Amino acid sequence: MTAISFARGAPSPECIDVGLVADCAAAVLERDGKTVLSYGAGGGYGPLRELLAQRHGVDPGRVFVTTGGLQGFVFYAAVQLERRPGRVLVEGPTYDRPLKILRRHGAEVIALPMDEEGLDPDVLEAELARGGDISFLYTIPTFQNPSGRTLGEARRQRIAELARGHGLDVLEDDPYGLVRFEGESPSWLHSIEGGEHVTFTSSFSKTVAPGLRVGWFVVPEAMRAAYDDRVVSTYISPPFLPQAIVHEVHERGQFEPNLERIRGILRAQRDAMLGALERELEGRATWSRPEGGYFLWLDLGDGVDTGELLTRATEAGVTFVRGADFFAGDGGGSAARLAFSYEPPERVDEGVKLLAGLID
Amino acid sequence: MTAISFARGAPSPECIDVGLVADCAAAVLERDGKTVLSYGAGGGYGPLRELLAQRHGVDPGRVFVTTGGLQGFVFYAAVQLERRPGRVLVEGPTYDRPLKILRRHGAEVIALPMDEEGLDPDVLEAELARGGDISFLYTIPTFQNPSGRTLGEARRQRIAELARGHGLDVLEDDPYGLVRFEGESPSWLHSIEGGEHVTFTSSFSKTVAPGLRVGWFVVPEAMRAAYDDRVVSTYISPPFLPQAIVHEVHERGQFEPNLERIRGILRAQRDAMLGALERELEGRATWSRPEGGYFLWLDLGDGVDTGELLTRATEAGVTFVRGADFFAGDGGGSAARLAFSYEPPERVDEGVKLLAGLID
Repeated sequence: MTAISFARGAPSPECIDVGLVADCAAAVLERDGKTVLSYGAGGGYGPLRELLAQRHGVDPGRVFVTTGGLQGFVFYAAVQLERRPGRVLVEGPTYDRPLKILRRHGAEVIALPMDEEGLDPDVLEAELARGGDISFLYTIPTFQNPSGRTLGEARRQRIAELARGHGLDVLEDDPYGLVRFEGESPSWLHSIEGGEHVTFTSSFSKTVAPGLRVGWFVVPEAMRAAYDDRVVSTYISPPFLPQAIVHEVHERGQFEPNLERIRGILRAQRDAMLGALERELEGRATWSRPEGGYFLWLDLGDGVDTGELLTRATEAGVTFVRGADFFAGDGGGSAARLAFSYEPPERVDEGVKLLAGLID
Repeated sequence: MTAISFARGAPSPECIDVGLVADCAAAVLERDGKTVLSYGAGGGYGPLRELLAQRHGVDPGRVFVTTGGLQGFVFYAAVQLERRPGRVLVEGPTYDRPLKILRRHGAEVIALPMDEEGLDPDVLEAELARGGDISFLYTIPTFQNPSGRTLGEARRQRIAELARGHGLDVLEDDPYGLVRFEGESPSWLHSIEGGEHVTFTSSFSKTVAPGLRVGWFVVPEAMRAAYDDRVVSTYISPPFLPQAIVHEVHERGQFEPNLERIRGILRAQRDAMLGALERELEGRATWSRPEGGYFLWLDLGDGVDTGELLTRATEAGVTFVRGADFFAGDGGGSAARLAFSYEPPERVDEGVKLLAGLID
């Protein structure tokens, strides 16, 4: 039997509607084939840029459609560390790949501790008061990777004020926000602040298909030229076919129905995980209860080393990512990121049982 | 009327077979849709890596399929300048975008003068004898951008020997090699040297469609891990749909027939340009006579400033890229890169007439 993966931050294969993508591919090649298959604007396929520009209320020239969300981070970090050298503030814990990229740049990275409601504005304010140069704050406010936590609305207002007041540049990464199973969506920092200091990034990996590699970012007006130069000097233009497919999914009115279908699949998987954790680990561990996204954060408390647990779990046939991988400094030793995105409910259930057995 | 473009290094729209791409897209989504639309290996779509690995006689793990050839250069320059800091040797003239990327890295770039047969091995040997650290040599040996020149077979043997003898790392960029209208293809430096110091890069932009953004590079065995890390930390995995389409074009036996068709279109455009140059500028200028590719190099001789000419030409309705843009240092002031790749023969003819009128 293949191992049960709570490690993969990937959607269940069932989430991907191959037929929809195939229909859209055929339609865009039929209608706009020569454009789609030629070199074009470095910022991406025009009609998709326009659609996203409308969604964000900005000029299309501020929208850069990239080969996935991470590529947006790579562009942002390179441009931002060059124009504004200084330390980079991240959430502790945070997405591990950006940490690797920042390490490659030799950046000083400061992890700001979070609580159940995400980043604490008081902690951010204290960090700003320390003085010294800050390059930017990287935050994933909704269904955070890896913790599954969501920043509350009042905190968003305060963080946007801090950004404005201190001229703090912020990269708001929101790949999971639309994958919400229940509850109200809070506002984007980008909308609250107005997009002068906040750059927004997201992707269609979780809402259409990850393999299309279509992400986007919305940059401050003043930064357009720098990003234009950067993207053209990286790939001339990105592949337009996947971007045109995503645009066509919207044109057909299929984006929302497809997303609702995906939400249903992932909600069932999350429910299975929360249910199994309650049955198996109540009183012996704590975990986040996300209203959407891909992940929850399990903390087994002092005395448990999830690095060591991972070795035994892998042998037993279940995997996860150890908490320590998501910290810029120390932390996360007793924690684990559990992805409920990939496995169907019955395997989620089985995997949690296996894990619980190993924790005894 | 739209301006006649001898500036665009892009194929005539007629070169792109939209129907072939559409058929292949439908087939790969039907057969392998879930894989194509999911995250995968950072090095690219497995079947295409295997096909290219066979072509180059290497392990598939050494082949990285990227989002176009330039992205391969970006990866190579970043990894190479980090592991082996030193000056970068390029051809004078050379492709302008890599020059910009190298400038961004703050690299010291040395342009090695060429003659009609390309890079001169004696010049390279003298540069090696100067001592000091060399990061790598960047060369486009066949139908060079911008000069259209091709490095002779004997020179290739000597350059491969120099690479071996001096442990010189070389990036061999070959996007145009297969777009040959006549004559024999010389050997790849990569084949002669054996791929220990020579990294090979190319793309399907000129042989299938540029907008698919499918390039590849073949790295030395010792560099696999470094590139694996780099590509994953840039885009996790590249978009697989365009790569699967390129693979399917091969599977159907359509790669060669389609390429032969493209060669026919471009040959007619090159012939139109050479014919018009002979009629209009014989005795007043010199130019290269490439057996393939996209470009030729026009030199109007001392006393002509092609920067100034470009301003007047643009007003008159014909564009090109001025020679100076392709030099790391001084040079190219009286030269121009003329692309015959984009315009149909009658417009090529008209454009050369317009240019000749301005040169008087």
